[in-house]
Amino acid sequence: MKPSAQPLIRTSTRVMFYDTDAGGVVSNISYLRIVEHARTLLAESLGWKMEDCERNQCWPVVARTEIDYRRPSRLGDTLTVEGWLVDVRPSRFWSLFHVLRESDGLLIAEARQMLALVQLPSGRPVRVPSEWKRFVSPE
Amino acid sequence: MKPSAQPLIRTSTRVMFYDTDAGGVVSNISYLRIVEHARTLLAESLGWKMEDCERNQCWPVVARTEIDYRRPSRLGDTLTVEGWLVDVRPSRFWSLFHVLRESDGLLIAEARQMLALVQLPSGRPVRVPSEWKRFVSPE
Amino acid sequence: MKPSAQPLIRTSTRVMFYDTDAGGVVSNISYLRIVEHARTLLAESLGWKMEDCERNQCWPVVARTEIDYRRPSRLGDTLTVEGWLVDVRPSRFWSLFHVLRESDGLLIAEARQMLALVQLPSGRPVRVPSEWKRFVSPE
Amino acid sequence: MKPSAQPLIRTSTRVMFYDTDAGGVVSNISYLRIVEHARTLLAESLGWKMEDCERNQCWPVVARTEIDYRRPSRLGDTLTVEGWLVDVRPSRFWSLFHVLRESDGLLIAEARQMLALVQLPSGRPVRVPSEWKRFVSPE
Repeated sequence: MKPSAQPLIRTSTRVMFYDTDAGGVVSNISYLRIVEHARTLLAESLGWKMEDCERNQCWPVVARTEIDYRRPSRLGDTLTVEGWLVDVRPSRFWSLFHVLRESDGLLIAEARQMLALVQLPSGRPVRVPSEWKRFVSPE
Repeated sequence: MKPSAQPLIRTSTRVMFYDTDAGGVVSNISYLRIVEHARTLLAESLGWKMEDCERNQCWPVVARTEIDYRRPSRLGDTLTVEGWLVDVRPSRFWSLFHVLRESDGLLIAEARQMLALVQLPSGRPVRVPSEWKRFVSPE
Repeated sequence: MKPSAQPLIRTSTRVMFYDTDAGGVVSNISYLRIVEHARTLLAESLGWKMEDCERNQCWPVVARTEIDYRRPSRLGDTLTVEGWLVDVRPSRFWSLFHVLRESDGLLIAEARQMLALVQLPSGRPVRVPSEWKRFVSPE
Repeated sequence: MKPSAQPLIRTSTRVMFYDTDAGGVVSNISYLRIVEHARTLLAESLGWKMEDCERNQCWPVVARTEIDYRRPSRLGDTLTVEGWLVDVRPSRFWSLFHVLRESDGLLIAEARQMLALVQLPSGRPVRVPSEWKRFVSPE
């Protein structure tokens, strides 16, 4: 279910040659890259900059992905990705992404990802910022 | 749950630079490529050749992916992928893959994918070969 | 050599996790994707839409790539790509791309690509539009 | 020009869905991944293990790539990559790769790459092992 709240992030991308495969449609794998782009910008919008990952050696780790492919999309399509936080726990958080085709607004794919934060080189889990809870949009 | 039956496919790959990211570990996205490699060879082992996709314009389509990332793996690791069919319906089938690190046998990732077969250019669904049912290993 | 003329295209991208490798820098392969993005938009700016590739089955084919990697770039960097046409012949054209880091303007990579146009399924070469000659910026 | 000497490495790969694009052929970018696979194994055959990159923080860096795409290849093709060292200097080396289609032995692509070795975090160049000179096959 799509949360009723406004998405925390909205990105847009054109489908390029490298996104497609010989079946003529966007590869199932490319959607994960498109979602990762949106997810990273969602985290930045909450104050968690990519540059800080390196500086602090505190890295986001995808622990689980679920993705449903609803309709094919094709070369040249403009895809919009909307993203929400749907759950925040001390040691992990869930994000939800809808990939929509701009020309007709149809849902192309829907992804949910659970992430954790990990301190390197120890590998110890890092607490998810509790203030992220106020950005959660329940499904 | 891993089926008790022997896997239908077993592939092996070394982790290359292009599989890793700046966190020093294999990217969540690369596992999908590693799984796709195994899945395609699993389908070929059941008589469904890649070349036939083009010739017959009958294409496999990933409808859903679930993947759990259990442990990180790193540059140079050898990863073994084992794959099973876990359900076959008239219009779709489910496959299951375990990604294991060869050096210690530990489970690195576990993926389930639902696929359908689609006829192009009509986009009509194609019946999954019913003889595939005898290769199913229930979870 | 960078042409003195204004680039025909200028795109911008943030370096994402999927662009980097375990060495902590952007993978040599990712720059090719970043360049392909700019090249495709350059072609569109000259009237050659991606959607037309499918409709007309007239496809651009990369015949040669030369790329020099000048400096590393890292997670979170904003990269600007500037692109020019540097030669147009009846059966092929050359494009040039500079990848610059936005924060300091330094040249990160420089790529030249020769392309041809091919009609499918025959595989016959298609004449490059001669009006593209007036967009050429000699090096 | 292909050296007359035996290649230092020979690898083999099937063309998978993720290697192809909507034009129905292998993407120009995928060949770089296929070549990187062969190049990494070539370096290992000379005693330079991937795991040592991490341990010693001494990383290979691609400084230049030249690749000519001679013929298209397609889903399901088996591609063989043959690789040679063609020049070794104190601060860099050149490798050469031929990508051949197994079914007819035709040359699909030909790549030359110049690499350097870099010590992290200093970024200082590392001397290329001078014993590599005896593996050089002049073009």
